[in-house]
Amino acid sequence: MTFQAPESLSEQIAQHIGQRIIIRDLVPGSRIQELKVASDLSVSRGSVREALLILERRHLVEIFPRRGAVVSSLTVDSVNNLYDIYIDLLCMLGRKLVERWAASDLDGILMRIREVEAVTQAINSPGPDSAEKIIDAGYMVMRHVFRLVENPFLEETLENFRPAISRTYFVALENFQGSIGQTAVFFRRLGEAALSGDADRLQSAIQAFGEHQRQQVLRILMEEESA
Amino acid sequence: MTFQAPESLSEQIAQHIGQRIIIRDLVPGSRIQELKVASDLSVSRGSVREALLILERRHLVEIFPRRGAVVSSLTVDSVNNLYDIYIDLLCMLGRKLVERWAASDLDGILMRIREVEAVTQAINSPGPDSAEKIIDAGYMVMRHVFRLVENPFLEETLENFRPAISRTYFVALENFQGSIGQTAVFFRRLGEAALSGDADRLQSAIQAFGEHQRQQVLRILMEEESA
Repeated sequence: MTFQAPESLSEQIAQHIGQRIIIRDLVPGSRIQELKVASDLSVSRGSVREALLILERRHLVEIFPRRGAVVSSLTVDSVNNLYDIYIDLLCMLGRKLVERWAASDLDGILMRIREVEAVTQAINSPGPDSAEKIIDAGYMVMRHVFRLVENPFLEETLENFRPAISRTYFVALENFQGSIGQTAVFFRRLGEAALSGDADRLQSAIQAFGEHQRQQVLRILMEEESA
Repeated sequence: MTFQAPESLSEQIAQHIGQRIIIRDLVPGSRIQELKVASDLSVSRGSVREALLILERRHLVEIFPRRGAVVSSLTVDSVNNLYDIYIDLLCMLGRKLVERWAASDLDGILMRIREVEAVTQAINSPGPDSAEKIIDAGYMVMRHVFRLVENPFLEETLENFRPAISRTYFVALENFQGSIGQTAVFFRRLGEAALSGDADRLQSAIQAFGEHQRQQVLRILMEEESA
């Protein structure tokens, strides 16, 4: 594997390593050796160090003064802490959306929600791809909401949590396949709550969805931890 | 100025540049030139690039693909967006605190709150130093709460916002001097609300404090923007 386009080399390396962490090809707790990565990818050690800082920001690695970079943990505790702040930030995004939107924005959101519903309903034979498609569609909705809410700090903070959340989805992927129909129901409820313009109702729908995802992930993790 | 201790060189550079941004020695919108910083501080360009990534994570610079690093903006809009998410995260911290604490933790928090009160009350002749002391004391309380709440994601996210919040305090520093007594009152209310174990009351106290700080900063910024 070779990388080009020098202006975003560290970002490309970060995405490459990040993807390996998300699919747990690089397991929690394992060390990432700068020199080895640099030699494997034929890039400079400096670019790898930059990539590791980007991955630290995205909560996928932790960097320790002398030990270097380690893949961040994935335990019942860490998943609970992650979902606590993620659901809280999504609720904030939902409240800001209801505060901010004008009637003209409603059409755009409705269109996105229908796109997601179409994606979720079109999938009759769940496979690894279909789950990823639904996850991507969910993020598309979120990006659309970012444009309406216009808070770069909130957007950046949520985007930085996205890879760690994606990693938890991969934990529950098998389970997730079976509950794609359920996910479609949650999306529909989110859409209805958003349309109602009722901030409390939207917040409840976000929390219900987030807690459902959290429980799916925790169930698998607890099985793994007790195995 | 020379830097040593190679294991945290980029962190030291980040803190040095960050401090210049916080006190507005480096003004919003100005470019930070890697090569110039590297030569001024006698460090490698790679270390400067790492430092800039750290500063981007702390919301003090923005890095653009070809333009390089630019000091992040400080406007009415950006301050509003920043305080929106910061107050929201502080409220989350408050709620988690009330959920989590045990009677034994109460003493530690009480002690910290009394330390802050002592700091705020001991200052009879406000100067630039006294404001910084109060700000530091406030962060000490927050750090103590972090240890009780034990959510590294929330801690990291709040810590990453701290430099940008500090920069806004520096905007309002002159104003802040005059309201040190008021700040002491807010701290006392926070303490009382925390002690009551009433999450809603604590959340209200946090919001009142945060909104007070926001308004102080916005008043000065609006004067500057209309000047």
